[in-house]
Amino acid sequence: MKSSDELPFDKLREECGVVGIWGAEEAANLTYLSLHALQHRGQEGAGIVTADGDTFHIYRGLGLVGEVFGEEAIQGLPGKASVGHVRYSTTGESNHKNVQPFLVRYRDGHVAIAHNGNLVNGPQLRISLEESGSIFNTTSDTEVILHLIATSQQKTFVNRLVDALTQVKGAYSLVLLTNDKLVAVRDPLGIRPLVMGRMGDAVVFASETAALDLIGGVYEREVEPGEMIIVDSDGMTSLSPLPRADRKACVFEHIYFSRPNSKTFGISVYESRYQMGQTLAKVQPVEADVVIAVPDSGTSAALGYAFASGAPFQQGLIRSHYVGRTFIEPSQRIRDFGVKLKLSPVREVIAGKRVVVVDDSLVRGTTSKKIVRMLRDAGAKAVHVRICSPPIRGSCFYGVDTPTKEELIAHRMSPEEVCEYLGADTLSYLPLDVLHAMQGDTASTYCDACFSLNYPVKVSEEEERNQLGLFAGPEAL
Amino acid sequence: MKSSDELPFDKLREECGVVGIWGAEEAANLTYLSLHALQHRGQEGAGIVTADGDTFHIYRGLGLVGEVFGEEAIQGLPGKASVGHVRYSTTGESNHKNVQPFLVRYRDGHVAIAHNGNLVNGPQLRISLEESGSIFNTTSDTEVILHLIATSQQKTFVNRLVDALTQVKGAYSLVLLTNDKLVAVRDPLGIRPLVMGRMGDAVVFASETAALDLIGGVYEREVEPGEMIIVDSDGMTSLSPLPRADRKACVFEHIYFSRPNSKTFGISVYESRYQMGQTLAKVQPVEADVVIAVPDSGTSAALGYAFASGAPFQQGLIRSHYVGRTFIEPSQRIRDFGVKLKLSPVREVIAGKRVVVVDDSLVRGTTSKKIVRMLRDAGAKAVHVRICSPPIRGSCFYGVDTPTKEELIAHRMSPEEVCEYLGADTLSYLPLDVLHAMQGDTASTYCDACFSLNYPVKVSEEEERNQLGLFAGPEAL
Amino acid sequence: MKSSDELPFDKLREECGVVGIWGAEEAANLTYLSLHALQHRGQEGAGIVTADGDTFHIYRGLGLVGEVFGEEAIQGLPGKASVGHVRYSTTGESNHKNVQPFLVRYRDGHVAIAHNGNLVNGPQLRISLEESGSIFNTTSDTEVILHLIATSQQKTFVNRLVDALTQVKGAYSLVLLTNDKLVAVRDPLGIRPLVMGRMGDAVVFASETAALDLIGGVYEREVEPGEMIIVDSDGMTSLSPLPRADRKACVFEHIYFSRPNSKTFGISVYESRYQMGQTLAKVQPVEADVVIAVPDSGTSAALGYAFASGAPFQQGLIRSHYVGRTFIEPSQRIRDFGVKLKLSPVREVIAGKRVVVVDDSLVRGTTSKKIVRMLRDAGAKAVHVRICSPPIRGSCFYGVDTPTKEELIAHRMSPEEVCEYLGADTLSYLPLDVLHAMQGDTASTYCDACFSLNYPVKVSEEEERNQLGLFAGPEAL
Amino acid sequence: MKSSDELPFDKLREECGVVGIWGAEEAANLTYLSLHALQHRGQEGAGIVTADGDTFHIYRGLGLVGEVFGEEAIQGLPGKASVGHVRYSTTGESNHKNVQPFLVRYRDGHVAIAHNGNLVNGPQLRISLEESGSIFNTTSDTEVILHLIATSQQKTFVNRLVDALTQVKGAYSLVLLTNDKLVAVRDPLGIRPLVMGRMGDAVVFASETAALDLIGGVYEREVEPGEMIIVDSDGMTSLSPLPRADRKACVFEHIYFSRPNSKTFGISVYESRYQMGQTLAKVQPVEADVVIAVPDSGTSAALGYAFASGAPFQQGLIRSHYVGRTFIEPSQRIRDFGVKLKLSPVREVIAGKRVVVVDDSLVRGTTSKKIVRMLRDAGAKAVHVRICSPPIRGSCFYGVDTPTKEELIAHRMSPEEVCEYLGADTLSYLPLDVLHAMQGDTASTYCDACFSLNYPVKVSEEEERNQLGLFAGPEAL
Repeated sequence: MKSSDELPFDKLREECGVVGIWGAEEAANLTYLSLHALQHRGQEGAGIVTADGDTFHIYRGLGLVGEVFGEEAIQGLPGKASVGHVRYSTTGESNHKNVQPFLVRYRDGHVAIAHNGNLVNGPQLRISLEESGSIFNTTSDTEVILHLIATSQQKTFVNRLVDALTQVKGAYSLVLLTNDKLVAVRDPLGIRPLVMGRMGDAVVFASETAALDLIGGVYEREVEPGEMIIVDSDGMTSLSPLPRADRKACVFEHIYFSRPNSKTFGISVYESRYQMGQTLAKVQPVEADVVIAVPDSGTSAALGYAFASGAPFQQGLIRSHYVGRTFIEPSQRIRDFGVKLKLSPVREVIAGKRVVVVDDSLVRGTTSKKIVRMLRDAGAKAVHVRICSPPIRGSCFYGVDTPTKEELIAHRMSPEEVCEYLGADTLSYLPLDVLHAMQGDTASTYCDACFSLNYPVKVSEEEERNQLGLFAGPEAL
Repeated sequence: MKSSDELPFDKLREECGVVGIWGAEEAANLTYLSLHALQHRGQEGAGIVTADGDTFHIYRGLGLVGEVFGEEAIQGLPGKASVGHVRYSTTGESNHKNVQPFLVRYRDGHVAIAHNGNLVNGPQLRISLEESGSIFNTTSDTEVILHLIATSQQKTFVNRLVDALTQVKGAYSLVLLTNDKLVAVRDPLGIRPLVMGRMGDAVVFASETAALDLIGGVYEREVEPGEMIIVDSDGMTSLSPLPRADRKACVFEHIYFSRPNSKTFGISVYESRYQMGQTLAKVQPVEADVVIAVPDSGTSAALGYAFASGAPFQQGLIRSHYVGRTFIEPSQRIRDFGVKLKLSPVREVIAGKRVVVVDDSLVRGTTSKKIVRMLRDAGAKAVHVRICSPPIRGSCFYGVDTPTKEELIAHRMSPEEVCEYLGADTLSYLPLDVLHAMQGDTASTYCDACFSLNYPVKVSEEEERNQLGLFAGPEAL
Repeated sequence: MKSSDELPFDKLREECGVVGIWGAEEAANLTYLSLHALQHRGQEGAGIVTADGDTFHIYRGLGLVGEVFGEEAIQGLPGKASVGHVRYSTTGESNHKNVQPFLVRYRDGHVAIAHNGNLVNGPQLRISLEESGSIFNTTSDTEVILHLIATSQQKTFVNRLVDALTQVKGAYSLVLLTNDKLVAVRDPLGIRPLVMGRMGDAVVFASETAALDLIGGVYEREVEPGEMIIVDSDGMTSLSPLPRADRKACVFEHIYFSRPNSKTFGISVYESRYQMGQTLAKVQPVEADVVIAVPDSGTSAALGYAFASGAPFQQGLIRSHYVGRTFIEPSQRIRDFGVKLKLSPVREVIAGKRVVVVDDSLVRGTTSKKIVRMLRDAGAKAVHVRICSPPIRGSCFYGVDTPTKEELIAHRMSPEEVCEYLGADTLSYLPLDVLHAMQGDTASTYCDACFSLNYPVKVSEEEERNQLGLFAGPEAL
Repeated sequence: MKSSDELPFDKLREECGVVGIWGAEEAANLTYLSLHALQHRGQEGAGIVTADGDTFHIYRGLGLVGEVFGEEAIQGLPGKASVGHVRYSTTGESNHKNVQPFLVRYRDGHVAIAHNGNLVNGPQLRISLEESGSIFNTTSDTEVILHLIATSQQKTFVNRLVDALTQVKGAYSLVLLTNDKLVAVRDPLGIRPLVMGRMGDAVVFASETAALDLIGGVYEREVEPGEMIIVDSDGMTSLSPLPRADRKACVFEHIYFSRPNSKTFGISVYESRYQMGQTLAKVQPVEADVVIAVPDSGTSAALGYAFASGAPFQQGLIRSHYVGRTFIEPSQRIRDFGVKLKLSPVREVIAGKRVVVVDDSLVRGTTSKKIVRMLRDAGAKAVHVRICSPPIRGSCFYGVDTPTKEELIAHRMSPEEVCEYLGADTLSYLPLDVLHAMQGDTASTYCDACFSLNYPVKVSEEEERNQLGLFAGPEAL
């Protein structure tokens, strides 16, 4: 017997979602629901810290938000201020320690932190902190920020935080909670998203507007790149304490990470995907009888593609939503077992047809190869693969879990080679220059380093090694 | 705090799915995967019985297939023959007893049974069996069949089974397992589906072809109405021991129950739904800017509707697939909380538009009312509800969990009143005569009693009372 | 790695404990506490059925009483009448079905039953019931009684029950619950114990007085052999409907099964054991420096032995009470690992001493052999094993889980051979005639078939085979 | 309904047990078994860290050792060196962080620590560490030691550790594990126990010899007060780097904490208790018919008392070993419910007798009061309470969980008042001077501050406040 380990699909993975709430009755309950709305950003761990005057409460666990938190857990988190986090992590007790928010005591009291992003110079900072006597409890770069706050010579929490952030390089959307304030801050490049909204008198920060929508909050605006918003009993203060820079928002939020019903970086994710599909249909047309999506992530783009191409959109692949984490495979293996557990072809849609199958992105190509085979087995006369993003050629160092360059199919193969590998009749990506054209004047405000290798925060060779080395090293820490 | 109990949505519920496998290595593992493919037919309990020569093994539990069965459970089910079952049930230990397959000993040995359907005269048979000294361990009518087998004067298992089935009235697709044979049988009207396929030398029975597809089996044909197929070491035998009748296949399998990628009663479910959508667009047209579905069940019909209407199909509602069984709601209730947990509107698709929202069926109307409100909140200029099935006016007595007549909105209200209740601009159902016209010559081979009140198996008033009385009575039994 | 499976110790195992309560607020809670006091009689499964007017509630599970029942489970069992059961069983879902009480519906309504004992002619009755069309859901002989009730031609529940019991042979202390009465009955020989007490107006039946003591009930008397006590809204009625016989109470209740603080068959268990120890010291004296017990079951007898012998009683073996069900042993095995997990020698008590080690009984001898070795390793100069009961030479057919005769060391070996096998300096049992002398006039009122092979209920060879055959046969049923 | 929260009994609680192993195959498995043998020293959390070359593995959890560790957990802990810990802790996720061993990274690599004891100046050290920028993840004083190691200016791990320990005041028996060495160290006063043994070539440290016995290790000697033993690939080195002091071993280890089969501070615990009982009988004699113990902790002393007094020892109270953590009490409360769950009187031993009931110590007196009442209810003619230790008049600051002074009955009441409170006929403690006389020359080598208020490590008023303040403060940290 062998369990299927092909899940999740061959996708890049956003590493986190964060929430911060100030001034709400039942802050923990609202945070928990918000985290549920951000569940797609991290499915392996969730946690909430609340502050109830000077008393802090913490509850964290491995699993989905709905699994981690029961009624008792929520009731054990009193207070009107809270921060929450969802994350990816590998399994095992050892990593339980890595579930955020982190809550620590330092000289001025307690501070809780939840972080979306990745610090490019985390490992170096860690080494130098260790050299000054800091001890590390986790393998997370987020802990570096806490040590920088604790060791800062500044006198107030906000100044300590500013001091800390001036030393870090990379991507961070942070929410921090002390006994008397909630702070939200986004790195100067605004790489990862963070929005602000209100629920009556309460203030809510979240990675995506979808979180606001679920709890009945009203979206107000993005936290700006480099902006630090402080909420306390005196109200809200906005600071811009960090050196200014041009925004470099992660384009992959629009391509895959954010929910279609979110507005991310001020733009509708659904519209953005629909338009990428339309554009791809125009620049990479093909004669076809039907357009289908790889659900669910490819659906918005596929609808746009179908609309622009004139071929009808159909449900050629049905997704099962009961798939758990592992499934036991018979010893006599079932062909394309892992994909079949999730996707079932609709033979009547496919048989005898020239099929355009639309996906949002192509990472290693392993799942797509099986999908092409599944479509041919279902009788497709031709299979045209359309990827509504450019080829992924480089790793991300700003908070996205990408395979190494060597595993990225577009790093190793030309589009023609990829097409052959997949067994497709044709394969087209959305060309990078076309994407830029679509973005128009705003093109330069996006980070597309995974496509262009144009990294807005430079990563030295040592840093690149460190990324994979120092933090990942000992299993347990 | 209050948990959301609005889940699942306002839908009729198919009560069961069954699987039977003969002659396969790892029969239990294949059965488990097949049950996973039938998970939509019953999400609250699952079980498998295998026979390994004269030794029987059983494993059953409450929950999803992937939760009930772990590797250890599968390994504890050796043998090359098995039957499996997924079902709905209410919570609590007491109903653990109702999880099928049932496995009992009677004079000739062991027999396991898995049943999809409902016996109209189950309660009466139960009373008369009790009068002859039978004791009942469950509240399930399936146990009646076992007692009829055990008390039959016939000499062989097959004859006993025939004897039993000649006494029952109603809907049943059954698989039964003894130490030396697997039997699949469908009631004379063929109300509930049951298909037969092969995997190499092994024979597989399942409620839907989707189960065959997942395990790499090949669909061969339906078990015919009134047919009994016996598989043993001598091969396969087909009998037609029951009085002949005209087929009355459940039309709701096409409308909602079966997976779109299944072929049920010989017809593609996806095509059937797509066509219902097309037809509805033709007979109930409306000026609109966009056609959206209530996902996932309304999507196929919505695509058909959009195609026929000329208005573009868009994803106006995004479904969350992380919803667990209950979610904790803050004491200050969130408007339409239960629906919001599952469905999120895409404002850009809806705002300022005349929206056609397509669903497969309308039961109580409670969820739809919230969806209409959600669409208006998202800025819809007009909301036109299109239901791709006729009004549901009566309960089902053949294995579908329907509310009482009084709860069915179409029993209480005219379409105009329903429209007003929902707060929609217009509401249209697929008229029953139009559905009949679509079905053409085959119209009479379907049971559409829930629409037409034309019940193919007559249910006396006493039987109707009994349905809700005798079996449901004492909590624990 | 290998788990220790030597637990529990080498003891005979009482198979069950029963409780019945009528007329008490919170009957389920009191039953649960009573079952806890009977936990030593069955540690692998527990269940409670309550009746609340015509509604019955059931909750059962595998494990200890404190594990099976939480607050929610108790709250889900309303009603003022209840029956409860603890039992031994083997692991696995299949045997979940065997956890009592059983609750079934028959022609006159519901009946729940809890049974301590074993029916000698259960298998034959089962066969003949199956021949008349009964189906069996469990492998338990208790189900036979239910079928006999259900198929009886008598008209009232009590008459049906009497009719059923006149057909069964063997040992039974039963409590049965219907919608309007609680019935307690003990077989004509009174083999297994059953006592009656009161708590205010409520009536309580239990296997031992320890259950009454815990809940603050007052012991009134034993249910007499062959007596049937019926409690209903009219009060209490005592019947003696079964053919009279001389009492044959299980002597092993005094030797090992009952708690020392219980009064069983009208006699203090503690005194009984203490006296057996005293007697043994007199008839089998030995020069010794210290008397120690194999705790906990040997302690009472060891104290009696020490008192009579004049040598001081000391704690030579300390018992760990944290032992769970399995412990993981290193691959390089630890000598006498299983025993060491439970018992630790106190070197200072043992080293250089002539040690008398007292145990209540000797079954296979496997544990005792390790204990003798452990004492020698701790420096004992001599080890004298004293067993305060006669040699066990035959199996029990009346509700005690005994090994087969072949496994019983006293069946295979003379006391001298046993002594050599154990590695002891001397070994003495309490001779059967001495036990009889101790019992005086009452000697004939005890069943000591396991020592004397004098079975009060004759067991034919076929019945003996059946005991091990029919019910044990198929794993799952 | 109300759960019983009277458990555990009215006892002082040893706070921890530690284990360290170097050079053994399956070090984790041996550590787990050793922790099981130390389970009585801490029942609420357990953890193990292993080092496998430079890779560290950690597994910790709340609950008993047998609950926390399954086979999978043990297999996930490879390596030949390990440290383990059992502890008391309060419930809740927040305290999951407090389960030891702690494993952190500092500048020279990883270090794991397990600690038995308490640092008197922990809070002050914490404040000054925070002032230098350290952050705290737990509320445990053990974390202070890690920060002192990390911030030390010394160059090697051992020197850093020495540097750290010269700064702490209080009680500590520590085991520490780095990638290349295992270090065991005991505070200069040797307050808490720590022994060293061998298993073939492997070295084992443990709080008690019972741990060695279980795994087949051989006791070699105590780690001396102030001694630091370093084990690495070069063998074993003993250092005495800390200022010399006279030993002050915790006398309560002999009275209650250690297992009777352990040799603690070089003396048999069983003999020690037996002798205390004997001595008490001589100095506080009373006419009695029977001597009984409060099992299990009072049994050894009761045997000594009985022997010296001439009255027979009997089992007057039977202890149930099935008690779980909580039991649900009916709303109509059962008198002395919590005690009854654990202890049952044997009426025949008690009724009509003058009873001496022996216990090891008396803390609040709440349980004893109920026991006296239970004995009277069982018919005792007189109840003489004998406590085999002096009156507890002060709190412990060295690693024992004592109530505040105000809760200690001997702080508030004279022996006569206590006797009256308990409802006993007479009450005697073991007088402190008699205890000293028993100890002879070694009396000055024991800490008996809880009796004498003679604290070997002075605790300032501020420190006393801090003990209850700083660490206990915020719930979550």
